[in-house]
Amino acid sequence: MGFQIQTLPLVFLAWLFLIHHASSQRSTYIIHMDKSTMPKAYSSCHHWYSTTINSMRATNVKASDIHHYREAKLVHTYDNAFHGFTAVLSEDELESLRNSPGFISAHKDKPIVPDTTHTHKFLGLNTASGIWPESKYGEDVIIGVVDSGIWPESPSFRDEGLPRIPARWKGTCEAGQEFNSSHCNKKIIGARFFNKGDLAASPDVKISMNSTRDIYGHGTHVASIAAGSRVEGVSFFGYAPGTARGVAPRARLAIYKVLWDEGAYESDALAGIDQAVADGVNVLSISLSYLTIDLYENPIAIATFGAMEKGILVSVSAGNRGPNFATVLEGIPWAIIVASGTVDRWFSGELTLGNGVSITGWTMFPARATVRNLPLVYNETLSACNSTEVLREAPSDSIIICVESFETPELSDQITYVTESNIHAAVFVSDDTGVFRSTSFPLPGVVITPKEGKDVIRYASRSSQATATIQFQHTILGAKPRPAPAVSTSSSRGPARSYPGILKPDIMAPGVLILAAYNPNTALASIGSNIALSSDYNLESGTSMACPHISGVAALLKSAHPKWSPAAIRSAMMTTANSLDNTRKPIKDMGNDYDAATPLGMGAGQVDPNRALDPGLIYDATPQDYVNLVCALNYTREQTQAILRSSYNCSSPSTDLNYPAFVALYDPQETRTTKTQRFRRTVTNVGEGGATYKVKVKKPKDSVITVSPERLVFRKKNEKRSYALTIRYKTYEEYVINHGSITWIEQNGNHTVRSPIVVTPAEPSG
Amino acid sequence: MGFQIQTLPLVFLAWLFLIHHASSQRSTYIIHMDKSTMPKAYSSCHHWYSTTINSMRATNVKASDIHHYREAKLVHTYDNAFHGFTAVLSEDELESLRNSPGFISAHKDKPIVPDTTHTHKFLGLNTASGIWPESKYGEDVIIGVVDSGIWPESPSFRDEGLPRIPARWKGTCEAGQEFNSSHCNKKIIGARFFNKGDLAASPDVKISMNSTRDIYGHGTHVASIAAGSRVEGVSFFGYAPGTARGVAPRARLAIYKVLWDEGAYESDALAGIDQAVADGVNVLSISLSYLTIDLYENPIAIATFGAMEKGILVSVSAGNRGPNFATVLEGIPWAIIVASGTVDRWFSGELTLGNGVSITGWTMFPARATVRNLPLVYNETLSACNSTEVLREAPSDSIIICVESFETPELSDQITYVTESNIHAAVFVSDDTGVFRSTSFPLPGVVITPKEGKDVIRYASRSSQATATIQFQHTILGAKPRPAPAVSTSSSRGPARSYPGILKPDIMAPGVLILAAYNPNTALASIGSNIALSSDYNLESGTSMACPHISGVAALLKSAHPKWSPAAIRSAMMTTANSLDNTRKPIKDMGNDYDAATPLGMGAGQVDPNRALDPGLIYDATPQDYVNLVCALNYTREQTQAILRSSYNCSSPSTDLNYPAFVALYDPQETRTTKTQRFRRTVTNVGEGGATYKVKVKKPKDSVITVSPERLVFRKKNEKRSYALTIRYKTYEEYVINHGSITWIEQNGNHTVRSPIVVTPAEPSG
Repeated sequence: MGFQIQTLPLVFLAWLFLIHHASSQRSTYIIHMDKSTMPKAYSSCHHWYSTTINSMRATNVKASDIHHYREAKLVHTYDNAFHGFTAVLSEDELESLRNSPGFISAHKDKPIVPDTTHTHKFLGLNTASGIWPESKYGEDVIIGVVDSGIWPESPSFRDEGLPRIPARWKGTCEAGQEFNSSHCNKKIIGARFFNKGDLAASPDVKISMNSTRDIYGHGTHVASIAAGSRVEGVSFFGYAPGTARGVAPRARLAIYKVLWDEGAYESDALAGIDQAVADGVNVLSISLSYLTIDLYENPIAIATFGAMEKGILVSVSAGNRGPNFATVLEGIPWAIIVASGTVDRWFSGELTLGNGVSITGWTMFPARATVRNLPLVYNETLSACNSTEVLREAPSDSIIICVESFETPELSDQITYVTESNIHAAVFVSDDTGVFRSTSFPLPGVVITPKEGKDVIRYASRSSQATATIQFQHTILGAKPRPAPAVSTSSSRGPARSYPGILKPDIMAPGVLILAAYNPNTALASIGSNIALSSDYNLESGTSMACPHISGVAALLKSAHPKWSPAAIRSAMMTTANSLDNTRKPIKDMGNDYDAATPLGMGAGQVDPNRALDPGLIYDATPQDYVNLVCALNYTREQTQAILRSSYNCSSPSTDLNYPAFVALYDPQETRTTKTQRFRRTVTNVGEGGATYKVKVKKPKDSVITVSPERLVFRKKNEKRSYALTIRYKTYEEYVINHGSITWIEQNGNHTVRSPIVVTPAEPSG
Repeated sequence: MGFQIQTLPLVFLAWLFLIHHASSQRSTYIIHMDKSTMPKAYSSCHHWYSTTINSMRATNVKASDIHHYREAKLVHTYDNAFHGFTAVLSEDELESLRNSPGFISAHKDKPIVPDTTHTHKFLGLNTASGIWPESKYGEDVIIGVVDSGIWPESPSFRDEGLPRIPARWKGTCEAGQEFNSSHCNKKIIGARFFNKGDLAASPDVKISMNSTRDIYGHGTHVASIAAGSRVEGVSFFGYAPGTARGVAPRARLAIYKVLWDEGAYESDALAGIDQAVADGVNVLSISLSYLTIDLYENPIAIATFGAMEKGILVSVSAGNRGPNFATVLEGIPWAIIVASGTVDRWFSGELTLGNGVSITGWTMFPARATVRNLPLVYNETLSACNSTEVLREAPSDSIIICVESFETPELSDQITYVTESNIHAAVFVSDDTGVFRSTSFPLPGVVITPKEGKDVIRYASRSSQATATIQFQHTILGAKPRPAPAVSTSSSRGPARSYPGILKPDIMAPGVLILAAYNPNTALASIGSNIALSSDYNLESGTSMACPHISGVAALLKSAHPKWSPAAIRSAMMTTANSLDNTRKPIKDMGNDYDAATPLGMGAGQVDPNRALDPGLIYDATPQDYVNLVCALNYTREQTQAILRSSYNCSSPSTDLNYPAFVALYDPQETRTTKTQRFRRTVTNVGEGGATYKVKVKKPKDSVITVSPERLVFRKKNEKRSYALTIRYKTYEEYVINHGSITWIEQNGNHTVRSPIVVTPAEPSG
């Protein structure tokens, strides 16, 4: 039930070990309260909650326990996205609270963990036309980033040329350790930090950086992806060189630090979201993960419901638990859940043999090594690369060929053995594609495929004069060697555990080896076995990096269309998303042998910001529509109330949310072989003037789809039209996923409005 | 009698070992001919020379000798800067040539070797005002660079924005190995290569890059210092970061490759200079050195006489044989001889102790190492850093303090021992300032002074919990820790051996750790004991790097004042040169314990391009003035003719060249204790309109100076006025050097025209 890492680097795994267990005497609880029942005698919720807590403080404490004794204590009060508070309570005290007026529910506070720039180009963003100039680059939209804080000195947060802070902004720049108000500017307009939950869980811990300053790097990375300013001449040790900038380079950032080196808890994340809503952010970017499935127990789901009600679009990372089925745990219907895709970029070393043959291999050796015309060594004993001692027998001023096989150590261990020997350089022959996600490459070497390796081994075996040259720091853009985007292996797959009937993830954005700003003191690469290197910009992978891309696009859309609801913004992104890669073929799934991806991996597809600017039609949804959905989920009254709070209307429960995707579920245990499901949808014409759309259906295998009507005529802008879609589909005893799409095509116009259709089992097998 | 290296990096020393000895049967000779005696039957000099050589070919060769037999062979014909040819001859054949009509002299061909950017800022060059905009950045002036060729793909040689090649240009882009006409552009307008002398000396050698392509880097570096285009975002592994550009960023480059990995010879350098003169260069930049002292035996001196006659300013590096007295061998009176000074830049690592104390040390570790809060280790055994084995006993994840003393290895060896151990990082306590000229620093460490080291050792000795952090890649600009410029230790000192009566060097320019373009494949740095790194930009030191700064300034002056003679351009630079450093105190001499430098080290001082643009008065000199000088040097007729060629007029011999400096010589062996010397000078008013100047004299110690008249009145521009300067000076039995200056100060104006005065022995002692 803890939070889980959504960023791949191992450095952060260490973090999990730092999470302390709560005191044996008391635990931290997040308490949901019904604000409508507050007695009029209280001037504020805080007054009410603190009185409640004070009333249950123990009056008799043994002197011997005093040192370790912790009083019942109010930690956070929430009043914006969520009504309630966090408190440190004993089980008895909790029990007594359960009987207090207005109590809805209580859950133990749990730890959370976090889920990376050519990507703006890959997404088609450009200064000449389209959404960038039309949205003024997101100017004056405020993106709230709930993460590990920010490194304010990063050039990505310079504010040159930005106008003054929007007058509506109610946030502040909170001072703390190594952070004062001068660290905010017209880019970083807010900075706050929340660690009372962390301190409640581990009262003796010393917070090593008690301020919004980011000593990890994740928050800095995420914020600069969403809204980093333009910075020329950046790279990761010579790789991915170029100009960094965020998706919405003129949007403003409000930073809420809730991830700490000493631990991270739901209660603090909740406090950050609650404050962001009060401060007036327009978009919330949450690259965090947690293992709470049920919506009514998930404080992030609950808090983001409140944010949605206030018109805030919430973008959440899908998690990095792929590629297995139903690994999306963050299936929040009112948020946009973001899958991670690859980028059309490849980091390479050029291997040139003495005979002139040239091969492009993978490398990330973090410096411009000079490996020129050195002897190329192959022999069966050495080339197993299974022992540093044996490798020390090889001539040091040479290039060793290492071949990975069933009998040798795996590639990453071979790299370590050669690094610890004194050999100058290496060519690794391996079909391990996992290395392509790693930024660690501590010796001058390249990885080539077994097919490419054959020629190299033949050349090296036949001549004792064989030589080779390797060049480093090459960055290749474009469709080779792999089409892009592809769904990344680790990206969590739908359907959502919380509620499988609404497609999650919603959409895909770049999340593999993304270059963005970082903490400049963190060791990010190494050379040899004992030299660590740092950089102002880091390449990171995970849905954590995909999420802020969508936050940035949402900010651009919000700037261009200030009146669009969060559902409208999400609909514009989903119905215009690209289901094809840069070879014009269906997007592939890295986690499924590069077969075609399904909507359970990529949602509606890869976000296309310029098309999202002008989607033609949108599937809108009001807060009441989400209320109707929650009311239909067979929750208890308390569970329902935990999400919806006190004043809600459950008179029209419906799971048929007006959502731009269709999920038809079946249970492999069922005996029926066909099922029918009917959906009703209403689309709003957001194009200029009248338009006529005709439907085009690409049916899932073994299904029959009917749409009625097949033509939608709009006489003017903002008119709504409804249609029904019925799917009659086959069920299977195995876990078969079929998918198709419905596209409304504008007649005599340019708009096409596409929604994915998925036929899938609801629950994972086993 | 060979050529000598004028660049410090050791890599080039290897080159000397490659110089092959000439065939035992024949040698290469450079032959000076009197062109005026050519019989009319010959259509050209080449026809005459080749007939002469063919006539002496042996007709009887033993069959057994055929394989090794080398015919008498014409290698180069010279007809521009110099009249004559190079030929491979036996001693008999040479003897027969001596009796041929027109023969002047013959010398064996000898090897040569080469001498190495914020510097434009350090020199005050800026785009807002002064010589850059007024000279159009040297546009259309052609600088001929005689060196190791060029790496044409370097971004420093991009030609964006340059107008078409000047119509007067007669050069060409010679095709060769990995070099074709497309490698020239509007920046590199000429490329030629000369290695017949090299091949004549070593007939069996294979030229590894038989074209103008530079596989060393020296020529590329020198060319980009003189006239490199603007390139943003360059550095040497993170040090000296910024925008690189040459001193004359819009001047054109004509490249003459005469330095080869396989050897380099005077005959080829002569061929390059001769061709450059024929091609029409305006400035010649020669960063080469050689050990030939006598002007009449020195082909560079002879060829540059021809260049000077054609109005070409020739800039030559002073050599790197300092700091001893009379180490300038390249004392060519008609060239400008350039000394090397330091730059106001320092490369550092910041050492921060766990107690908060911070010390700025020297480092050039070539990456951004992360050394944070690691244990700081000091103990007497380990801290001697005298054995890799002993150091392996220390905890690897720590910072070792190494203290250099009389009992320990020297600093460079300590660095090697620590590098080969597994210790993470090191603090070196040493007063060895030689390290500050080295770019090699293969482990994460800093060098601090013994004074700074006391605090560090005390802190580390007293606490077993001592820690430290080191930050790398810092670049400090300005007067700390050392005032700049200072004369670099290695820069050769006057007086010139060839003729001590004219001040050499003439002037000083930046030559220490200069960042400029380089061969991108050369290993320039290393990490650990087996990883070599390369870079597009290299930091190099030496008078080789100072010389092209002056070539660039000369191009700017030539562009602004197209009619100025080489002597006028030189005078403008010398009389406006700065004798003060950036602390407004007299320039110091690094090679003399930072005492004040003398004109024998720095010439007139540090070049000041903006002031040279408008010098007020100039000391001009015509080719006949130099003829008069050579005629006065007590040479034989043949020796004189070797320099002046056939048609000269020795009717007015005079050593009193109209030169902007005064040298009064004495012989410590002489018994007289006072001497008198009288000089006569003529200055031309190059200011706008009339002007009146009054003299101000700063007399050398133990001297009396009289100037007559003390006031010079010019009614209009280009008027000339003469004056006499008499010095009555004391002589010493020891080698005492005294110096002063004479400055003509414009009344009611801004011009000051300063000339150094030196009283010095002529010849080195011992």
